[in-house]
Amino acid sequence: MSVTDEYLENNRAYAEGFEGPLPLPPSRHVAVVACMDARMDVYRILGLKDGEAHVIRNAGGVVTDDEIRSLAISQRLLGTREIILIHHTDCGMLTFTDDDFKRAIQDEIGIKPAWSAESFGDLEQDVRQSLRRIEASPFVTLHHSLRGFVFDVATGLLGEVV
Amino acid sequence: MSVTDEYLENNRAYAEGFEGPLPLPPSRHVAVVACMDARMDVYRILGLKDGEAHVIRNAGGVVTDDEIRSLAISQRLLGTREIILIHHTDCGMLTFTDDDFKRAIQDEIGIKPAWSAESFGDLEQDVRQSLRRIEASPFVTLHHSLRGFVFDVATGLLGEVV
Repeated sequence: MSVTDEYLENNRAYAEGFEGPLPLPPSRHVAVVACMDARMDVYRILGLKDGEAHVIRNAGGVVTDDEIRSLAISQRLLGTREIILIHHTDCGMLTFTDDDFKRAIQDEIGIKPAWSAESFGDLEQDVRQSLRRIEASPFVTLHHSLRGFVFDVATGLLGEVV
Repeated sequence: MSVTDEYLENNRAYAEGFEGPLPLPPSRHVAVVACMDARMDVYRILGLKDGEAHVIRNAGGVVTDDEIRSLAISQRLLGTREIILIHHTDCGMLTFTDDDFKRAIQDEIGIKPAWSAESFGDLEQDVRQSLRRIEASPFVTLHHSLRGFVFDVATGLLGEVV
């Protein structure tokens, strides 16, 4: 049995206690952008309840065109007005360089990815430049709050990057 | 007080019971790609425990270059070997067309986004084409399981798309 099958069994138990459909727009008007890291259960970390906030996640919690796309849809069509950006300590993105990662792929399969891997060497610096990418986008402008944090995987605490 | 501030208070309560830190690589070797929808608490829906699986999320749960980037890092650097793709009923992506969305932005700010908005008209069809995008990528090849699902926001159940 695959892990996927185990998770599908868990889903059947989840559905037994499920209470019907909530509205589509996030009720607290918040969008979170966070790393995909397995140790970050974003709903628990922030105390999100079902239906409250959009949660966008990727390797690093970085801001590329796809996060701008998601945030633009989140704000313009579904009314979110606050953005919370979260990187975290002990992140995989601190452990390699784009050049080495792309070289390894090219050496193995003969193709170099045309995209950036978005690795970074300094957590707080990358939180700041991710915030700047949002600020620089003409498509994500409807928020009244935009703040960046580092989640500490040893303590469970969010620390704001200023 | 902003909602962000409320969530930061929730985080302090979360950290009080926190038992950290766990290892960086996902212990169950799974990567999930899901929609950012506020009603999808992916950890609860699948019964994920902390540290088990990468969770990648965006508007629609679609597969663009940024999801390929995240999946390539997930597989090549952190050892995931199963992929679970999740769209859901009542998705915002079913409610507009790329042309209309981009036209509205252009009418308002004078710039048309160079990216696709990735809206879709048929849930199961878009799950299938998202699976095909992963299968077509030369950079995401290390999984032994790749399966796609629709989450029903009325029942809490995942239905497999075959």
